[in-house]
Amino acid sequence: MQRSILLTPGPATTSDNVKYAQIVPDICPREQSFGELIREVCNKILLLANGENTHHCVLFGGSGTAAVEACISSVIPDTGKVLIIVNGAYGERIAEMCKVYYRSSQYEIYQEAPTKLPCIDKIEKRLQSSPEISHITVVHHETTTGILNPLEEIFALAKNYGKSLIVDAMSSFGGIDINLDKMPCHYLIASSNKNLQGMAGIGFVLCEKKTINTIANFPKKTLYLDLYSQYQSLLLKNEMRFTPPVQTIYALNQALNEILEEGLAQRISRYSNNWQCLVEGMAGLGFNMAIPDMPQSKILTTFLEPDWPNFSFETMHDFAFERGFTIYPGKTLGIRSFRLAIIGDIYENDILNFVIIMQSYVKKICYI
Amino acid sequence: MQRSILLTPGPATTSDNVKYAQIVPDICPREQSFGELIREVCNKILLLANGENTHHCVLFGGSGTAAVEACISSVIPDTGKVLIIVNGAYGERIAEMCKVYYRSSQYEIYQEAPTKLPCIDKIEKRLQSSPEISHITVVHHETTTGILNPLEEIFALAKNYGKSLIVDAMSSFGGIDINLDKMPCHYLIASSNKNLQGMAGIGFVLCEKKTINTIANFPKKTLYLDLYSQYQSLLLKNEMRFTPPVQTIYALNQALNEILEEGLAQRISRYSNNWQCLVEGMAGLGFNMAIPDMPQSKILTTFLEPDWPNFSFETMHDFAFERGFTIYPGKTLGIRSFRLAIIGDIYENDILNFVIIMQSYVKKICYI
Ligand SMILES: Cc1ncc(COP(=O)(O)O)c(C=O)c1O
Ligand SMILES: Cc1ncc(COP(=O)(O)O)c(C=O)c1O
Repeated sequence: MQRSILLTPGPATTSDNVKYAQIVPDICPREQSFGELIREVCNKILLLANGENTHHCVLFGGSGTAAVEACISSVIPDTGKVLIIVNGAYGERIAEMCKVYYRSSQYEIYQEAPTKLPCIDKIEKRLQSSPEISHITVVHHETTTGILNPLEEIFALAKNYGKSLIVDAMSSFGGIDINLDKMPCHYLIASSNKNLQGMAGIGFVLCEKKTINTIANFPKKTLYLDLYSQYQSLLLKNEMRFTPPVQTIYALNQALNEILEEGLAQRISRYSNNWQCLVEGMAGLGFNMAIPDMPQSKILTTFLEPDWPNFSFETMHDFAFERGFTIYPGKTLGIRSFRLAIIGDIYENDILNFVIIMQSYVKKICYI
Repeated sequence: MQRSILLTPGPATTSDNVKYAQIVPDICPREQSFGELIREVCNKILLLANGENTHHCVLFGGSGTAAVEACISSVIPDTGKVLIIVNGAYGERIAEMCKVYYRSSQYEIYQEAPTKLPCIDKIEKRLQSSPEISHITVVHHETTTGILNPLEEIFALAKNYGKSLIVDAMSSFGGIDINLDKMPCHYLIASSNKNLQGMAGIGFVLCEKKTINTIANFPKKTLYLDLYSQYQSLLLKNEMRFTPPVQTIYALNQALNEILEEGLAQRISRYSNNWQCLVEGMAGLGFNMAIPDMPQSKILTTFLEPDWPNFSFETMHDFAFERGFTIYPGKTLGIRSFRLAIIGDIYENDILNFVIIMQSYVKKICYI
């Protein structure tokens, strides 16, 4: 199997064992043994977040966005209001969903520049000035930039003020420690194909057991993405309501086995080490971080495009691509930038090889 | 690879080549070559329905229901009204979606018993008495029962009255001839894992080119399932808007190669032959069709449970399952029944083997 290294924020490079886990005898997903697999997958996801006692795992067939939308569309009551913290494209996407599903009096946006952290004081002021706020949404790791938002502080604030917290942890889950037992966010959302290193096609919402039943009778705003109905089907029958992506679930199970075997702490330290090598290696070649003074996810980093005469993202992309590495353009920063992630089944050696390739690229365009 | 035969209405038995098509080097779905694959898959789907000139193919990551919901939620204007033809669970599901998305004045349900065909005269009367009806929905093959609804007649009626026709062709597409060039339904919906014999995880809507732009400015009712935005992204960039199920798309491409190689006519006749063998074989054992006097899809058939003292669906299921065959319970008919489908990578010999196994089961429970 030809190995290709994706330095993109997911789908990530997967192990051969994850790939081959998709090859199973055909099975009807209504069979009991498939139900047991679903249960196992949900339990392993919860185990990773230390959420077995506190949370349910609700799977959806679809991308991560589907799971975010399932949550956003299903948990805000008619009388509620959601404060949407935005400092990047994924925060904006949640705002877009709220615009689709709610009256303008039901949400408010706290917008920061994508180069900035949301400010805890400002959030607190919002909660004080709009006591009708019932829910807060935050993107844990803003994949637009690589900034790690202050989840613990926001959780503490939400708890103090008695607000429900919805966390988009798409690109942090499995790569940054999240302890739901200590920090029982009401809803936490992620997917199969980022730090979990599975195949794309499954999104999930971890829902706090204590409060999930409060949404039981909210008016349904979608059928496919209805969170409570999906939760009930999984709870009572170990079944997704509609045909699940069978093979992707087998792959996810294998991917979960691998992260549990590696150990979450060990995965996080492998990722941190990948990140350190990458950032240092790139710095040595003259590539600087775009937002060095903000808390870094150490999962993805935005680099400034150098203003060398012959540099272009496209030539760099193609040079790397021909050599087995895929890199990613920047997103909505208003500055010329590109992004590199270090997630997936990749190791220090891969990063070192990438830096060597970047060195060749730099030499080539600079005619050294 | 252990072969398991699913006599269920999908996910269906897949070929080994479809299974192995999932094993590809990791790829970032924003890469150009993946865009080309997406384009190729869309073109092959259109080719199968003779819709290359008349229709666009819009893919979604999710099950078939997701694609149905994408269509239902995206194409009815505020001033429109939809007539929902219901004679089974999948027609009811469309009604459920309309209840979620529309005011009660925006839809009306024409309900027939699941054992009955919708009546063309009654539909025409509805169109006459409710001229505000703008759209009609019909399930082509009602998988609840195996009844094949009269699509041609309903299309002709819709055309005469200038109504948009939405067809849920989930369990007919690729197993029954649908010619969009001759019968340009406005919207036709299916998925990857039934007669196409691919893996589950992709639904699609074939949209008439001539009229798709009429929905451009309808108020968005969902983000993930928004049909027009997804159409635009595929048209302009060969990209699904959100992370696609990469490996499932490779499998679908292989599955499409296989149906194009087999030939649609040949697949249909293989299925018909499977069906004939099954129905005759089962009749020989004393299993009778529940609805013999209705037009049959020849894709799935509902059988009456015999009232032999020792018969139970569960023991029959387990007996067959241990021998490599999966069978399916009945659905919402109000009579004791079970269903057998004949789709997938299965052949006359498989059906004959199944009948032999059923014979053993019957002998066993009757102590013959
Ligand atoms: C923080 C965040 N939220 C949501 C998403 C959307 O996930 P998907 O692309 O699987 O729909 C992403 C994807 O990169 C993400 O990084
Ligand atoms: C006619 C029909 N419509 C819709 C569906 C729903 O498809 P899915 O189970 O993939 O959501 C099915 C599935 O059997 C079907 O047969």
